[in-house]
Amino acid sequence: MTETTTAPARRAGAAPAPAPETRRPVDPHLMDLAARRVAIEGIDPEIDGGRFPAKVARGQRLYVEADVFGDGHDKVACALLWRKTGEAEWHEEPMRYLVNDRWRGSFKPQAIGPHEYTIIGWRDVWEYWRYEVGKKHGAGVPIELELEEGARLLAASVGAGRGSAEDQTALKRLAEAMKSAPDSERFRQLMSDDVAGLMQRAGHRANLTWYERVLPLTVDRRKAVFSAWYELFPRSMSGDPNRHGTWDDVIRRLPYVQGLGFDVLYFPPIHPIGATNRKGKNNTLRAEPGDVGSPYAIGAAEGGHDAIHPELGTFDDFRRLVEAAAEHGLEIALDYALNCSPDHPWIKEHHDWFDWRPDGSIRYAENPPKKYEDIVNVRFYDGDKPIPSVWEKQRDIFLFWISHGVKIFRVDNPHTKAFPFWEWVIAEVQRDHPEAIFLSEAFTRPKVMHRLAKVGFTQSYSYFTWRNTKHELIEYMTELTTTVKRHTMRVNFFVNTPDINPVYLQTSGRAGFQVRAVLAASLAGNYGIYSGFELCEGTPIPGKEEYLNSEKYEIKAWDWDRAGNIRQDIALMNELRQRHPALQQFENIKFYNMWNDNILYYGKRSKDLTSFLLFAVNLDPHNDQGGNFEVPLWEFGLPDGASIEVEDLVADYRFTWSGKIQHVHIDPQQRPYYIWRLLSPTGAR
Amino acid sequence: MTETTTAPARRAGAAPAPAPETRRPVDPHLMDLAARRVAIEGIDPEIDGGRFPAKVARGQRLYVEADVFGDGHDKVACALLWRKTGEAEWHEEPMRYLVNDRWRGSFKPQAIGPHEYTIIGWRDVWEYWRYEVGKKHGAGVPIELELEEGARLLAASVGAGRGSAEDQTALKRLAEAMKSAPDSERFRQLMSDDVAGLMQRAGHRANLTWYERVLPLTVDRRKAVFSAWYELFPRSMSGDPNRHGTWDDVIRRLPYVQGLGFDVLYFPPIHPIGATNRKGKNNTLRAEPGDVGSPYAIGAAEGGHDAIHPELGTFDDFRRLVEAAAEHGLEIALDYALNCSPDHPWIKEHHDWFDWRPDGSIRYAENPPKKYEDIVNVRFYDGDKPIPSVWEKQRDIFLFWISHGVKIFRVDNPHTKAFPFWEWVIAEVQRDHPEAIFLSEAFTRPKVMHRLAKVGFTQSYSYFTWRNTKHELIEYMTELTTTVKRHTMRVNFFVNTPDINPVYLQTSGRAGFQVRAVLAASLAGNYGIYSGFELCEGTPIPGKEEYLNSEKYEIKAWDWDRAGNIRQDIALMNELRQRHPALQQFENIKFYNMWNDNILYYGKRSKDLTSFLLFAVNLDPHNDQGGNFEVPLWEFGLPDGASIEVEDLVADYRFTWSGKIQHVHIDPQQRPYYIWRLLSPTGAR
Repeated sequence: MTETTTAPARRAGAAPAPAPETRRPVDPHLMDLAARRVAIEGIDPEIDGGRFPAKVARGQRLYVEADVFGDGHDKVACALLWRKTGEAEWHEEPMRYLVNDRWRGSFKPQAIGPHEYTIIGWRDVWEYWRYEVGKKHGAGVPIELELEEGARLLAASVGAGRGSAEDQTALKRLAEAMKSAPDSERFRQLMSDDVAGLMQRAGHRANLTWYERVLPLTVDRRKAVFSAWYELFPRSMSGDPNRHGTWDDVIRRLPYVQGLGFDVLYFPPIHPIGATNRKGKNNTLRAEPGDVGSPYAIGAAEGGHDAIHPELGTFDDFRRLVEAAAEHGLEIALDYALNCSPDHPWIKEHHDWFDWRPDGSIRYAENPPKKYEDIVNVRFYDGDKPIPSVWEKQRDIFLFWISHGVKIFRVDNPHTKAFPFWEWVIAEVQRDHPEAIFLSEAFTRPKVMHRLAKVGFTQSYSYFTWRNTKHELIEYMTELTTTVKRHTMRVNFFVNTPDINPVYLQTSGRAGFQVRAVLAASLAGNYGIYSGFELCEGTPIPGKEEYLNSEKYEIKAWDWDRAGNIRQDIALMNELRQRHPALQQFENIKFYNMWNDNILYYGKRSKDLTSFLLFAVNLDPHNDQGGNFEVPLWEFGLPDGASIEVEDLVADYRFTWSGKIQHVHIDPQQRPYYIWRLLSPTGAR
Repeated sequence: MTETTTAPARRAGAAPAPAPETRRPVDPHLMDLAARRVAIEGIDPEIDGGRFPAKVARGQRLYVEADVFGDGHDKVACALLWRKTGEAEWHEEPMRYLVNDRWRGSFKPQAIGPHEYTIIGWRDVWEYWRYEVGKKHGAGVPIELELEEGARLLAASVGAGRGSAEDQTALKRLAEAMKSAPDSERFRQLMSDDVAGLMQRAGHRANLTWYERVLPLTVDRRKAVFSAWYELFPRSMSGDPNRHGTWDDVIRRLPYVQGLGFDVLYFPPIHPIGATNRKGKNNTLRAEPGDVGSPYAIGAAEGGHDAIHPELGTFDDFRRLVEAAAEHGLEIALDYALNCSPDHPWIKEHHDWFDWRPDGSIRYAENPPKKYEDIVNVRFYDGDKPIPSVWEKQRDIFLFWISHGVKIFRVDNPHTKAFPFWEWVIAEVQRDHPEAIFLSEAFTRPKVMHRLAKVGFTQSYSYFTWRNTKHELIEYMTELTTTVKRHTMRVNFFVNTPDINPVYLQTSGRAGFQVRAVLAASLAGNYGIYSGFELCEGTPIPGKEEYLNSEKYEIKAWDWDRAGNIRQDIALMNELRQRHPALQQFENIKFYNMWNDNILYYGKRSKDLTSFLLFAVNLDPHNDQGGNFEVPLWEFGLPDGASIEVEDLVADYRFTWSGKIQHVHIDPQQRPYYIWRLLSPTGAR
């Protein structure tokens, strides 16, 4: 049920107080407090007292809970109000009583962009009247007076202006009829469910109280919560380490990426690369002739952040790529890395955007005593004051690439730029482009990462890359899906990145790659791989979490059909994600009992249980592991001895489990995971 | 360290933004956001987003924690600001880094009344400079440029206007000297702790950021958190059931109450009692001639809430009582019960304060189908609108009794009056009388009780009366001392009331009374007994939680020396409470291991461990119970095998425990509790 409620316009955070109409001046504080007779508190979600928005994606339902109660024996009712920010009218959804004065309501926003919601509560005088009369009638106490009071209560709602025209007419007619009706007729009518419904729709809401705050909500498009990313270096797509790849080379790779089942294709920076202090292969300080440099050292004579590296091709070529990608079900994501090479045009054009040292040199990026001599940082502040031209220019760069068909940005190291800048720029961009998605590439302290999510980032890199054991994974998933972070932080589980060659994968062999692929694709709504992962590439610089001969500093040629690749596993996971609604949500995870600490065993399911998947993943890539486990028959209302039909989603056949306890044995060399679908038995639930 | 910080005046809830000083108009939202570069979040306490105040008592320290962090490699610092509401200047306290971006500060308010606090954070540029130069110097990297930058940084702080006049002079002089100093001298001076201290005091605070909200704090007098209440019916103090007690009779009882060690003496309503529909003994519907009626049926020809029941005495007598009580270390608490007997003068004088029914009769208090015919309720609202004259009259009644020397009010059934009324009236009364204490007598749903505490009640009745088992007591105490309630709700653990004759005490015999007295007096800062408890009176109306021949409806004569009384136990507990600081706090409780589920074993201690008490209470009043238990040697930094000196605070002798595990045997017929004091060994901590 959706109803429309109009309230006087007012600033966010304040709720309206009715105008006092008493005979003499009264303490306005008294009037203000008195207007909020019903207690409304403990709203969830409410992020930092309403300072930051909660988040949903279009098609998702936002569930809102609150404690709502009145004084004395009052019965109260409450409703959830919501609207797209800027709309005049509120949509109203009823709230349902749970327990212990807690209520829940929900809504499903239809549009993307900023929304807001709040709660109203009122004394449900009519329900209390029915309760009172019912009790007294049942106890044989006389109720003539009560019936007269009921008739008057009804009449007092005529003119309340609520409900449909039909309701209002019916209310008026009934009130008239009740004036002179005999008691038996009054009792029959006034106590009826029909009249209760009429009063719910059209009756006056006594002591209508608005919650003190209007709370913000960001509604994103669906890819904000459900996406599969594939990262590649365009310059490595020629297939020849001696020839710089072009957009056309990338276009030729699109069927491959589509075949793996991804829907976002993400490139490291595509801009001209500086020559001054260019890094050589394996991040050496001096480049050799022919070294291509790091794409993160942005800016050269050919241009900066709004230019394309000439060897990749032209803007026309790029446009063709964007279109071709779309035809392959792929959306392009670009890297926004606010590093400038010493050759960046801004350095000459905008002296005040940079930090100059007393000797007239520019300040390089540093992590004392280390100095990154191929990059300088733009500054956002001159001392205490922001430099608006810097902020605006960055906004314009996002808008520039949006005008070239790019709506997804992976943002490099956002935690090294000021939080207020992100809060401002993301809102600025999304004002006209609410479809824009910003992925925060911050690997840093937890509160910093969460703050970036709160100030506006659509998605966030995570600690997944370093969560390997059963205990670590359960603890981390529980934090992400049960604390406030479920409303604020959409993680994107990357299994690797050009910067992170995880220790686990350096030694796990092929089985470990399968394990991490299955975990990422099933645990998170958003996940990603950096190319090479599907080929089980994991050769490190010894003792480091970095790739040997990293693609960041040289052109690579990959053998996409390399023996032992796990392309099939990845394609399967992406296909299952598309096919099974249970995999398209994030919070719907439950870890079940598996009596082996090396096997992670969990279920993902839709609310109605029609989509119910179980995963058993052997986290130990080197050894066979087996264990008894519990089939969650109880979720279907089945007894422990019941049977349930199961579909093996990898081997593609059906069988039956009889009884709650089953056993599994997993040989990682064969396949380190099982994926089962439970078929809801007819009759159960 | 306390420093004074001045900020532009502004409304509560908003923090100042510096005036933009750029050359051309900029997006004010950008400027507003930019002014808050440092992230300040996760403040604790912050009650409902700052909607309600936290609470402390004078002499208590408020600890405030927050997550404070900057972007990039920034070092930040932060401070806690606080002031009495209305003061122009803020007091500043430093905050100390804990872990994981969390900081803590504290302050101890000196005055009672409303206060406010907030947090400021800034980039600690000087500390970052020292860190950078230290790192580079250690790595043998040249630092001439850095030293020049340091000298300039220092010079930039001249004129910041922070610190003492001496600091400012020293800063100016140093900046001048550094301009031309050789590098070795620059390094020596600028890296010194002295200069670091100077910069901390007088240096410019870069990107100074105010937390978005200013948070309210209520500071009460000490009795708000530490008080021992004794309740009696003045009319029963004559010692003769046929003679109505007077204030002079009460004066004669003061030495007895003082001897028990209480400091608050609380009376049920003392006003004229109505005759119409007066209740008889044992709450019968019709009074017999000579029945005195319930003091909760307030109002007769002689007056209402601002009158004294004539048989008790005059206002002069009452004044003498208040003075005599003070001489006996007792403060008088009155009952505020907004019930009106049908004879209350207001009914004639203020027709619009009551609910009239269609037949011209008045609406009695009801709990359908039950009707309380000796009481009618004043209404606070006429439909949706408050009736200000009712609100103001109630305020005036509190002020009236305050003018007669009463500063403590036990409020009857506050949950049946509107929350906004309490929020308004308590603030109104405390504006001129911040020493006024309001105890909420609400026994109802948990969120309603908590709301009353939040809207302003100083103390709250609790569920203690119904928490009897070890599990129940630990769970309840944990809720009260570790959740938000530790900031908002000061419980008052009454062992009984005229309305509650707990089932446990009906069958426990004397030992149960001892158990409950010790628990109440040691677990809570505030506790109370209703007279008769010390005599182990527990005769119920069979099957009910009510007293037989309740004093609410008749005059009683008590034998204060009745055999088997527990006056000694109570006097001991009150004496221990006065003597041991550990018992004067509430949150300082820890439950330790006792391997017997019938014995509750807990410690109370001062922060510095100089006051450390252990309690072992046999909750089973009928059977001997014994158990091994852990002596918390580790709290003193002692190994498990260490010895510690112990004082038995009941039997008054000293002994030594050797080793962590000890055994106790408790015979409830002898004495159902042990109280030990651990004597902090010299050298440990």
